[in-house]
Amino acid sequence: MRPRINIVTLLVEDLDRSLIFYRDGLGFPTEGIADPADGGDHILFELEDGTSFVLLLRSSVAELYGSSVPSGSSGCILSHYAESADDVDEILQDAVIAGGEIAVEPVDLPWGYAGYFKDPDGHLWEIMWNSDEEEELQPA
Amino acid sequence: MRPRINIVTLLVEDLDRSLIFYRDGLGFPTEGIADPADGGDHILFELEDGTSFVLLLRSSVAELYGSSVPSGSSGCILSHYAESADDVDEILQDAVIAGGEIAVEPVDLPWGYAGYFKDPDGHLWEIMWNSDEEEELQPA
Repeated sequence: MRPRINIVTLLVEDLDRSLIFYRDGLGFPTEGIADPADGGDHILFELEDGTSFVLLLRSSVAELYGSSVPSGSSGCILSHYAESADDVDEILQDAVIAGGEIAVEPVDLPWGYAGYFKDPDGHLWEIMWNSDEEEELQPA
Repeated sequence: MRPRINIVTLLVEDLDRSLIFYRDGLGFPTEGIADPADGGDHILFELEDGTSFVLLLRSSVAELYGSSVPSGSSGCILSHYAESADDVDEILQDAVIAGGEIAVEPVDLPWGYAGYFKDPDGHLWEIMWNSDEEEELQPA
Protein backbone atom coordinates (compact mmCIF):
# COMPACT_ATOMS: atom_id res chain seq x y z
CA MET A 1 0.00 0.00 0.00
CA ARG A 2 1.55 3.27 -1.06
CA PRO A 3 1.53 5.99 1.58
CA ARG A 4 -1.18 8.29 0.39
CA ILE A 5 -4.59 9.58 1.44
CA ASN A 6 -6.61 10.67 -1.58
CA ILE A 7 -9.82 11.73 0.10
CA VAL A 8 -10.55 12.89 3.63
CA THR A 9 -14.23 12.42 4.43
CA LEU A 10 -16.00 13.75 7.48
CA LEU A 11 -19.43 12.44 8.39
CA VAL A 12 -22.00 15.17 8.97
CA GLU A 13 -25.64 15.44 9.99
CA ASP A 14 -26.85 18.36 7.88
CA LEU A 15 -25.43 19.33 4.49
CA ASP A 16 -26.97 22.80 4.46
CA ARG A 17 -25.38 23.58 7.79
CA SER A 18 -22.04 22.23 6.57
CA LEU A 19 -22.23 24.32 3.41
CA ILE A 20 -22.82 27.46 5.42
CA PHE A 21 -19.88 26.61 7.63
CA TYR A 22 -17.28 25.51 5.10
CA ARG A 23 -18.17 27.44 1.96
CA ASP A 24 -19.72 30.63 3.30
CA GLY A 25 -17.83 30.79 6.58
CA LEU A 26 -14.38 29.48 5.82
CA GLY A 27 -14.34 30.16 2.10
CA PHE A 28 -13.70 26.65 0.81
CA PRO A 29 -14.58 26.56 -2.90
CA THR A 30 -17.20 24.01 -3.95
CA GLU A 31 -19.99 23.53 -6.45
CA GLY A 32 -22.23 22.85 -3.47
CA ILE A 33 -24.33 19.88 -2.51
CA ALA A 34 -24.08 17.07 -5.03
CA ASP A 35 -26.89 16.61 -7.53
CA PRO A 36 -29.52 14.03 -6.68
CA ALA A 37 -28.18 12.06 -9.66
CA ASP A 38 -24.88 11.78 -7.78
CA GLY A 39 -26.59 10.72 -4.59
CA GLY A 40 -27.28 14.21 -3.31
CA ASP A 41 -25.62 13.17 -0.10
CA HIS A 42 -22.27 14.94 -0.06
CA ILE A 43 -20.30 18.11 -0.66
CA LEU A 44 -16.98 17.89 -2.48
CA PHE A 45 -14.09 20.32 -2.10
CA GLU A 46 -10.92 20.09 -4.17
CA LEU A 47 -7.98 21.07 -1.99
CA GLU A 48 -4.85 22.88 -3.14
CA ASP A 49 -2.66 19.77 -3.16
CA GLY A 50 -5.08 17.66 -5.19
CA THR A 51 -6.56 15.87 -2.21
CA SER A 52 -10.35 15.83 -2.06
CA PHE A 53 -12.24 16.82 1.04
CA VAL A 54 -15.76 15.43 1.33
CA LEU A 55 -18.57 16.03 3.78
CA LEU A 56 -20.84 13.01 3.67
CA LEU A 57 -24.23 12.54 5.28
CA ARG A 58 -23.92 10.09 8.11
CA SER A 59 -27.27 8.59 7.11
CA SER A 60 -25.88 7.79 3.68
CA VAL A 61 -23.02 5.81 5.19
CA ALA A 62 -25.61 3.93 7.20
CA GLU A 63 -27.19 2.84 3.92
CA LEU A 64 -23.87 1.66 2.58
CA TYR A 65 -23.20 -0.49 5.61
CA GLY A 66 -26.71 -1.90 5.71
CA SER A 67 -27.35 -0.58 9.17
CA SER A 68 -25.18 2.07 10.70
CA VAL A 69 -21.60 3.24 10.75
CA PRO A 70 -19.53 0.33 12.09
CA SER A 71 -19.49 0.56 15.85
CA GLY A 72 -16.32 1.96 17.27
CA SER A 73 -15.47 3.85 14.12
CA SER A 74 -14.69 7.54 14.24
CA GLY A 75 -16.43 10.18 12.22
CA CYS A 76 -13.86 10.31 9.47
CA ILE A 77 -12.96 8.06 6.56
CA LEU A 78 -9.58 8.13 4.82
CA SER A 79 -9.71 6.97 1.20
CA HIS A 80 -6.84 5.44 -0.71
CA TYR A 81 -6.77 4.86 -4.46
CA ALA A 82 -5.38 1.41 -5.15
CA GLU A 83 -3.60 0.37 -8.34
CA SER A 84 -6.05 -2.35 -9.38
CA ALA A 85 -8.92 -4.49 -8.13
CA ASP A 86 -6.38 -7.10 -7.04
CA ASP A 87 -4.52 -4.40 -5.16
CA VAL A 88 -7.72 -3.55 -3.27
CA ASP A 89 -8.06 -7.18 -2.20
CA GLU A 90 -4.40 -7.43 -1.22
CA ILE A 91 -4.44 -4.26 0.86
CA LEU A 92 -7.52 -5.45 2.73
CA GLN A 93 -5.80 -8.79 3.39
CA ASP A 94 -2.69 -6.98 4.61
CA ALA A 95 -4.86 -4.94 6.95
CA VAL A 96 -6.42 -8.03 8.47
CA ILE A 97 -3.07 -9.77 8.89
CA ALA A 98 -1.73 -6.64 10.54
CA GLY A 99 -4.50 -6.56 13.12
CA GLY A 100 -7.24 -4.63 11.41
CA GLU A 101 -10.77 -5.70 10.64
CA ILE A 102 -12.83 -5.71 7.45
CA ALA A 103 -15.74 -3.28 7.80
CA VAL A 104 -17.19 -3.88 4.33
CA GLU A 105 -15.98 -6.61 1.97
CA PRO A 106 -14.89 -5.20 -1.40
CA VAL A 107 -17.77 -4.74 -3.78
CA ASP A 108 -18.57 -2.88 -7.00
CA LEU A 109 -19.94 0.50 -6.05
CA PRO A 110 -20.98 3.32 -8.36
CA TRP A 111 -17.57 4.96 -7.91
CA GLY A 112 -15.48 1.85 -8.31
CA TYR A 113 -14.45 -1.38 -6.66
CA ALA A 114 -14.04 -0.62 -2.98
CA GLY A 115 -13.72 -2.23 0.40
CA TYR A 116 -13.32 -0.84 3.89
CA PHE A 117 -11.21 -1.77 6.84
CA LYS A 118 -11.00 -0.51 10.40
CA ASP A 119 -7.58 0.05 11.92
CA PRO A 120 -6.98 -1.16 15.50
CA ASP A 121 -8.59 2.01 16.85
CA GLY A 122 -11.67 1.75 14.66
CA HIS A 123 -10.66 4.42 12.13
CA LEU A 124 -12.16 3.63 8.74
CA TRP A 125 -10.15 3.39 5.52
CA GLU A 126 -11.78 3.01 2.15
CA ILE A 127 -9.60 1.22 -0.40
CA MET A 128 -10.90 1.77 -3.90
CA TRP A 129 -10.03 1.25 -7.49
CA ASN A 130 -11.60 2.71 -10.57
CA SER A 131 -10.49 1.92 -14.10
CA ASP A 132 -11.05 5.50 -15.12
CA GLU A 133 -10.00 7.42 -12.06
CA GLU A 134 -9.53 10.81 -13.58
CA GLU A 135 -12.97 11.06 -15.07
CA GLU A 136 -15.22 8.98 -12.90
CA LEU A 137 -13.91 8.85 -9.37
CA GLN A 138 -16.46 10.64 -7.28
CA PRO A 139 -17.97 9.77 -3.97
CA ALA A 140 -21.54 8.92 -5.02
CA MET B 1 -8.76 30.29 4.92
CA ARG B 2 -7.14 28.57 1.98
CA PRO B 3 -8.52 25.14 1.12
CA ARG B 4 -5.86 22.80 2.38
CA ILE B 5 -5.33 20.10 4.98
CA ASN B 6 -1.66 19.82 5.90
CA ILE B 7 -1.83 17.08 8.52
CA VAL B 8 -4.37 14.32 9.09
CA THR B 9 -4.15 13.08 12.68
CA LEU B 10 -5.86 10.01 14.04
CA LEU B 11 -6.12 9.50 17.78
CA VAL B 12 -4.91 6.10 18.94
CA GLU B 13 -4.65 4.16 22.19
CA ASP B 14 -1.39 2.25 21.71
CA LEU B 15 1.54 3.44 19.59
CA ASP B 16 3.24 0.03 19.44
CA ARG B 17 0.08 -1.53 18.10
CA SER B 18 -0.31 1.29 15.58
CA LEU B 19 3.29 0.89 14.43
CA ILE B 20 2.76 -2.81 13.81
CA PHE B 21 -0.37 -2.04 11.87
CA TYR B 22 0.71 0.89 9.71
CA ARG B 23 4.46 0.36 9.27
CA ASP B 24 4.82 -3.41 9.39
CA GLY B 25 1.40 -4.34 8.07
CA LEU B 26 0.59 -1.71 5.47
CA GLY B 27 4.13 -0.62 4.67
CA PHE B 28 3.86 3.07 5.48
CA PRO B 29 7.38 4.47 5.85
CA THR B 30 8.22 6.12 9.16
CA GLU B 31 11.09 6.66 11.53
CA GLY B 32 8.88 5.14 14.21
CA ILE B 33 7.64 6.44 17.50
CA ALA B 34 8.82 9.98 18.20
CA ASP B 35 11.72 10.49 20.58
CA PRO B 36 10.85 11.35 24.16
CA ALA B 37 12.42 14.76 23.45
CA ASP B 38 9.65 15.28 20.87
CA GLY B 39 6.95 14.18 23.25
CA GLY B 40 7.25 10.48 22.53
CA ASP B 41 3.54 10.51 21.91
CA HIS B 42 3.12 10.16 18.16
CA ILE B 43 4.18 8.49 14.94
CA LEU B 44 4.74 10.64 11.85
CA PHE B 45 4.38 9.45 8.25
CA GLU B 46 5.20 11.66 5.28
CA LEU B 47 2.72 10.90 2.50
CA GLU B 48 3.43 11.00 -1.21
CA ASP B 49 1.73 14.35 -1.81
CA GLY B 50 3.50 16.15 1.02
CA THR B 51 0.68 15.80 3.51
CA SER B 52 1.67 14.46 6.91
CA PHE B 53 -0.18 11.60 8.55
CA VAL B 54 0.12 11.42 12.32
CA LEU B 55 -1.00 8.86 14.86
CA LEU B 56 -1.29 10.62 18.19
CA LEU B 57 -1.88 9.13 21.61
CA ARG B 58 -5.35 10.02 22.77
CA SER B 59 -3.98 10.55 26.28
CA SER B 60 -1.62 13.20 24.94
CA VAL B 61 -4.50 15.15 23.48
CA ALA B 62 -6.18 14.92 26.84
CA GLU B 63 -3.18 16.73 28.34
CA LEU B 64 -3.41 19.45 25.73
CA TYR B 65 -7.05 20.10 26.46
CA GLY B 66 -6.58 20.00 30.19
CA SER B 67 -9.02 17.18 30.60
CA SER B 68 -10.09 15.05 27.69
CA VAL B 69 -10.80 15.32 24.01
CA PRO B 70 -13.64 17.83 23.66
CA SER B 71 -16.90 15.97 23.96
CA GLY B 72 -18.61 15.32 20.71
CA SER B 73 -15.39 15.44 18.72
CA SER B 74 -14.43 12.62 16.43
CA GLY B 75 -11.17 10.74 16.58
CA CYS B 76 -9.45 12.73 13.88
CA ILE B 77 -7.93 16.19 13.71
CA LEU B 78 -7.35 18.09 10.47
CA SER B 79 -4.50 20.58 10.63
CA HIS B 80 -4.19 23.69 8.52
CA TYR B 81 -1.08 25.85 8.25
CA ALA B 82 -2.08 29.48 8.43
CA GLU B 83 -0.13 32.36 6.91
CA SER B 84 0.57 34.23 10.15
CA ALA B 85 -0.43 34.45 13.79
CA ASP B 86 -3.06 37.02 12.82
CA ASP B 87 -4.34 34.60 10.23
CA VAL B 88 -4.77 31.95 12.94
CA ASP B 89 -6.89 34.37 14.97
CA GLU B 90 -8.94 35.40 11.96
CA ILE B 91 -9.67 31.87 10.86
CA LEU B 92 -10.83 30.97 14.36
CA GLN B 93 -13.08 34.03 14.38
CA ASP B 94 -14.48 33.08 10.97
CA ALA B 95 -15.18 29.60 12.29
CA VAL B 96 -17.16 30.95 15.23
CA ILE B 97 -19.13 33.39 13.07
CA ALA B 98 -19.92 30.51 10.70
CA GLY B 99 -21.36 28.35 13.46
CA GLY B 100 -18.33 26.56 14.83
CA GLU B 101 -17.00 26.56 18.34
CA ILE B 102 -13.55 27.26 19.78
CA ALA B 103 -12.14 24.08 21.36
CA VAL B 104 -8.83 25.60 22.46
CA GLU B 105 -8.03 29.31 22.28
CA PRO B 106 -4.88 30.00 20.27
CA VAL B 107 -1.74 29.68 22.34
CA ASP B 108 1.99 29.27 21.81
CA LEU B 109 2.74 25.56 21.65
CA PRO B 110 6.08 23.87 21.03
CA TRP B 111 5.22 23.51 17.34
CA GLY B 112 3.88 26.99 16.80
CA TYR B 113 1.00 29.31 17.53
CA ALA B 114 -2.13 27.20 17.31
CA GLY B 115 -5.80 27.16 18.14
CA TYR B 116 -8.54 24.62 17.62
CA PHE B 117 -12.13 24.82 16.53
CA LYS B 118 -14.89 22.29 16.23
CA ASP B 119 -17.07 22.33 13.13
CA PRO B 120 -20.86 21.98 13.58
CA ASP B 121 -20.48 18.19 13.79
CA GLY B 122 -17.70 18.31 16.35
CA HIS B 123 -14.82 17.55 13.98
CA LEU B 124 -11.64 19.18 15.23
CA TRP B 125 -9.45 21.50 13.16
CA GLU B 126 -6.11 22.73 14.34
CA ILE B 127 -5.11 26.10 12.87
CA MET B 128 -1.42 26.73 13.34
CA TRP B 129 1.33 29.05 12.34
CA ASN B 130 5.05 28.63 12.70
CA SER B 131 7.55 31.25 11.58
CA ASP B 132 9.91 28.53 10.39
CA GLU B 133 7.54 25.92 9.01
CA GLU B 134 9.96 23.98 6.90
CA GLU B 135 12.40 23.26 9.66
CA GLU B 136 10.41 23.18 12.83
CA LEU B 137 6.84 22.18 12.16
CA GLN B 138 6.37 18.90 13.92
CA PRO B 139 3.54 17.64 16.02
CA ALA B 140 5.19 17.55 19.43
